[in-house]
Amino acid sequence: MEIRTILVEPKLDENIGAVARVMKNFGFSDLYLVNPPDIGEKAMYVASHAYDVLRACEIAGSVEEAIENSVIVAGTTSKHGISTNKHLRMPFFSLQQLKEKVEGIRTGGILSILFGSEDTGLKNEVLMLCDIVVCIPTSPSYPVMNLSHAVAVVLYELSEVDGGMAAASGAIKLASVEAKERLFMHVKTFLDEIGYKEHKKEKTLLMLRRILGRAELTVREVQTLRGILRKAEWKVQMENFYKD
Amino acid sequence: MEIRTILVEPKLDENIGAVARVMKNFGFSDLYLVNPPDIGEKAMYVASHAYDVLRACEIAGSVEEAIENSVIVAGTTSKHGISTNKHLRMPFFSLQQLKEKVEGIRTGGILSILFGSEDTGLKNEVLMLCDIVVCIPTSPSYPVMNLSHAVAVVLYELSEVDGGMAAASGAIKLASVEAKERLFMHVKTFLDEIGYKEHKKEKTLLMLRRILGRAELTVREVQTLRGILRKAEWKVQMENFYKD
Repeated sequence: MEIRTILVEPKLDENIGAVARVMKNFGFSDLYLVNPPDIGEKAMYVASHAYDVLRACEIAGSVEEAIENSVIVAGTTSKHGISTNKHLRMPFFSLQQLKEKVEGIRTGGILSILFGSEDTGLKNEVLMLCDIVVCIPTSPSYPVMNLSHAVAVVLYELSEVDGGMAAASGAIKLASVEAKERLFMHVKTFLDEIGYKEHKKEKTLLMLRRILGRAELTVREVQTLRGILRKAEWKVQMENFYKD
Repeated sequence: MEIRTILVEPKLDENIGAVARVMKNFGFSDLYLVNPPDIGEKAMYVASHAYDVLRACEIAGSVEEAIENSVIVAGTTSKHGISTNKHLRMPFFSLQQLKEKVEGIRTGGILSILFGSEDTGLKNEVLMLCDIVVCIPTSPSYPVMNLSHAVAVVLYELSEVDGGMAAASGAIKLASVEAKERLFMHVKTFLDEIGYKEHKKEKTLLMLRRILGRAELTVREVQTLRGILRKAEWKVQMENFYKD
């Protein structure tokens, strides 16, 4: 699905700039503004390298105009105390549920996400236009988020950008069970070679196994550790040689 | 685990204020600043109701001082092109992996999360002090996030605040299979009553079942729908009565 970010009557143009920036960070560009203030230098400055997103934004005179052609309209809120009687705020989705819903829809189309103004949030008449209402879970002691922070969190959750994570984790090969087993055998031999106390050996080996297990060793790290052991073994043997 | 947010040499005091705000939004309060600028009115204004977090922040002269007593030190980066050879940026965690790691540690203690300055991010000498490096997945066309946005996304992922979501979803009872079945039988009867064409009925009922199935009806909504049906049936019967 395409994701459209709609700011409904934002008050501060710097927030609009900040929203443009975080949209580009997460790979989005479809920005609509409903009755925004004048967008000045401050917004451009805050948008930074996302001035293209800011420049290409659409200005709408009403929410109805902004959500045109949308397949789903989602309103965002961080308000508490939703009751079953208030159909207005129902159905009530978490961000994960919204993400699952979006992933489940294979037909494509536009998902419009509405964010209210800094002071009032989305008004009831706007919430009435929404198919679903999404809540960002925040602390009761201070539930009201900064506008661009709210957008950041929602778009982070919906982003399909993986930031090269897949490539990076593909490049990093974890060591096989066999390679790790050979490392442990090497460690065991080494403990013998340095004359480690027999009655302590088993426990120590288990501990090392746990530590190295938790560390999720890569192929390269196992190689390096075995290199260190070989180097140490060689030193120990030389030592023994001179001692003898 | 306790989570400590550490800003390493932030440049703009308004970003510090924005970080304080989002920390409080997600239920955190432990803020450390390493060599920050003077914190002026702008920061207090942006922090808004999180002035308490801002006021209680600790100023440290070095990263070493700020991470003292931490059990895990995590550095954040949005940089790409991590290679296996760069041990500096290894092991390399996604935010979800960091969250799983934190949840897996039952012994408690402080998890320190480091965020670099607006222009350079975390420098290599700071990354060397980190146990793990966490990457926020961002678009290659604009990977560099605003400082407070990066904090927002990381703390959102690690937050245990549920914003009353559990209570709200507990209050909203989904309709049982039986209640929905009774609703469908009611609809079926109604179609008969309004003289819906026999050869279309089966398909239409299936379609209605799918639509209402997708809608995840609550107990209350099923009641309301049946109320509408009863009202309509009554009207239809009156109609038939006068017609006869």
